[in-house]
Amino acid sequence: MEEKKIPYKIYLDESEMPKQWYNLRADMKNKPAPLLNPGTLQPLKAEELAPIFCEELVAQELDEDTKFVDIPEEILDFYKMYRPSPLVRAYYLEKALGTPAKIYYKFEGNNTSGSHKLNSAIAQAYYAKKQGLKGVTTETGAGQWGTALSMACSYFGLDCKVYMVKCSYEQKPFRREVMRTYGADVTPSPSENTEIGKKILAEHPGTTGSLGCAISEAVEVATTNEGYRYVLGSVLNQVLLHQSIIGLETKKALDKYGIKPDIIIGCAGGGSNLGGLIAPFMGEKLRGEADYRIIAVEPASCPSFTRGKFAYDFADTGMICPLAKMYTLGSGFIPSANHAGGLRFHGMSSTLSQLYHDKYMEAIAVEQTAVFDAATQFARVEGILPAPESSHAIRVAIDEALKCKETGEEKTIVFGLTGTGYFDMYAYQSFNDGKMGDYIPTDEDLAVGFAGLPKVDI
Amino acid sequence: MEEKKIPYKIYLDESEMPKQWYNLRADMKNKPAPLLNPGTLQPLKAEELAPIFCEELVAQELDEDTKFVDIPEEILDFYKMYRPSPLVRAYYLEKALGTPAKIYYKFEGNNTSGSHKLNSAIAQAYYAKKQGLKGVTTETGAGQWGTALSMACSYFGLDCKVYMVKCSYEQKPFRREVMRTYGADVTPSPSENTEIGKKILAEHPGTTGSLGCAISEAVEVATTNEGYRYVLGSVLNQVLLHQSIIGLETKKALDKYGIKPDIIIGCAGGGSNLGGLIAPFMGEKLRGEADYRIIAVEPASCPSFTRGKFAYDFADTGMICPLAKMYTLGSGFIPSANHAGGLRFHGMSSTLSQLYHDKYMEAIAVEQTAVFDAATQFARVEGILPAPESSHAIRVAIDEALKCKETGEEKTIVFGLTGTGYFDMYAYQSFNDGKMGDYIPTDEDLAVGFAGLPKVDI
Repeated sequence: MEEKKIPYKIYLDESEMPKQWYNLRADMKNKPAPLLNPGTLQPLKAEELAPIFCEELVAQELDEDTKFVDIPEEILDFYKMYRPSPLVRAYYLEKALGTPAKIYYKFEGNNTSGSHKLNSAIAQAYYAKKQGLKGVTTETGAGQWGTALSMACSYFGLDCKVYMVKCSYEQKPFRREVMRTYGADVTPSPSENTEIGKKILAEHPGTTGSLGCAISEAVEVATTNEGYRYVLGSVLNQVLLHQSIIGLETKKALDKYGIKPDIIIGCAGGGSNLGGLIAPFMGEKLRGEADYRIIAVEPASCPSFTRGKFAYDFADTGMICPLAKMYTLGSGFIPSANHAGGLRFHGMSSTLSQLYHDKYMEAIAVEQTAVFDAATQFARVEGILPAPESSHAIRVAIDEALKCKETGEEKTIVFGLTGTGYFDMYAYQSFNDGKMGDYIPTDEDLAVGFAGLPKVDI
Repeated sequence: MEEKKIPYKIYLDESEMPKQWYNLRADMKNKPAPLLNPGTLQPLKAEELAPIFCEELVAQELDEDTKFVDIPEEILDFYKMYRPSPLVRAYYLEKALGTPAKIYYKFEGNNTSGSHKLNSAIAQAYYAKKQGLKGVTTETGAGQWGTALSMACSYFGLDCKVYMVKCSYEQKPFRREVMRTYGADVTPSPSENTEIGKKILAEHPGTTGSLGCAISEAVEVATTNEGYRYVLGSVLNQVLLHQSIIGLETKKALDKYGIKPDIIIGCAGGGSNLGGLIAPFMGEKLRGEADYRIIAVEPASCPSFTRGKFAYDFADTGMICPLAKMYTLGSGFIPSANHAGGLRFHGMSSTLSQLYHDKYMEAIAVEQTAVFDAATQFARVEGILPAPESSHAIRVAIDEALKCKETGEEKTIVFGLTGTGYFDMYAYQSFNDGKMGDYIPTDEDLAVGFAGLPKVDI
């Protein structure tokens, strides 16, 4: 009976929107390991990061203590354009599965960038503007982050240079056009624009590129151009901080109806969505106030949590970025071109890596065709065509709901639906045509990436 | 001060959603002229329409008297998946324009079909299912209607055959894939599947197709296959009835904050969005309870209101459909291939045509490049990449707001933002590259279409 009162979509009022981000690290006993200087292999100081990142973002990156950070008014104003995002009760999916489980998803795709990435893009653009910069550089894989940053830069009148992983650039010309519509420069990576790009092209002619390589190029451009800094859409602590808005809204919406989740599921590439979605729930878990089963879902073709090493590694192929301790496949690892969509970063957020290492969360790797099966089923019953990335979470949410069907348990499952798949129709086409395959790297494949891990004694 | 209270997005609660559609014709003194049998040129009876359309939809098509129609529970359930849609206060656009005008837009694009078309698609699929049909056939131009119908048919387990105007089929392969993901068959039109398609291909080899031609093919397939009927996404009275949900929600949201619009603006191709958006406002106007300036915006390259004739005409190129009295460019008129996006139908809803003829509304034709200028400006400040169709309304809303800037008038402008432009990036690319042109048919161009108008003495 009480069930009836829960609407299909729970929207918070504008006045209920969170006014602070939550810094998960403040509640961690084992803090994530510090970033290291790639030259000295010693912990980085703020002044060493300043040539790469915006000042305020460096401060956020290194701040392990402040629990709540006020969201500046200018960012709140922008958030109001597309937030609060709905928490949807997946009544149709539950019915289609015949499960007693109650499924909710936080839908972050109802904005033109098509994903949650906008939450951090606008924050990073704001701090760049505040610092008086001319512009920012970045990399993008599937294109979601680049699109989000283009929108954010357009809003604040900043120049935006995007290095887009070549295979995505070719598969997703329309993403490029959205970025251009927002005034961004988009270059396929590796390119001849940078020293590192030239080097990679010389060593691997015909490479389809990787995030690690595009990062190197974007960092080089930022550090060699006056008035530019580099910004990154995932992995970093600052990004998880900004993305905590997802989890904070989710928790507030659930609390409104007295709902307590049993399982929280998010897809994980670099960890921006997962880290944001789980933040307040993980906080409760760390403080011993509540318990949740928290599941990271990653592609079997790029399995950093489930098959990677917990080690210091470079974020980029060019090895010019700071080193982070994280679950990694090695910065030399490049996922198969057969791998659709994003979630193709070789590493993982340090914060999430530490939490996974300390067993506060689980990880599951899923295969591509099973993911698109789930995506299609979800699209048909819930009316939203999901991004391939998000569909990793859908896959596991469906699997958990089907387990409940077997056991009769009425578990409450919450997952993050990070975005829409409108720019991923090549991948859907390959699935619709029955041409999509799976790709699981062999141990030998992985050994190549691991061999390149730096030796760090810290 | 009071101003402050209006949020960026006004959402109705699920419980506030309209439970009835509104039939505008019930309030019209001059009813739209009846449909005619293409053979006898006499007013059509329900039984003559039954081989083409679903029974219940025929009844709705011919019913001029019932003012409110209950929305069946099954349709309300589906509406809850993506409705109520937000009414957005365009604070950012107002600021960018520096206008004292207050601008609102009803945003219908936050669903996977990407437009308002889903509102009628789900209704038509429901009635087809209720009648025990196997499936439905239809045409689609830009692809919005086809996508919407695919989603609706997938929901009710109906077969869906879509004839897609060839130039759109080629320009928008991703639209096709979305339809396929929802299980639809998609065929470029004209095709060799139908007699009429073969005939048109023989007469006009290399034609890029037209809506009128695709309609003929879809009707032929529906009437020659057991258990199929034809459905249409615009023009018809039944469609305007279903789309009244847009206007009813808009009015309810405005009423909640005591807002009375001065100007209501909608783009118009066949009239589905415009007819739906203005329905309750036009009702008040017809009943003498309120006055509004109502503006239809159409492309200068397909100017049925502003340069068409008010005459009986065929809806389709093959001349097998019923005749409707409407503003039309003639069923032989095919807009330039240079024309981007939808709004390419040669005719216009009979209901809207009658209202326009009776001077209850105005019409403005706008050129393509001016439309994409407005689209880009809107995308950058409001954060939504609009469909080319919707951008026609944006263009005129901006122009009216700029007039207010000159005069200092604080007019309230409401426009319909029918959808998103994610599948229209070829058009944006052509605009971004400075390659987009305008195309205004000459009087001689139009004379060709007019010469084919049927002679009807009624």
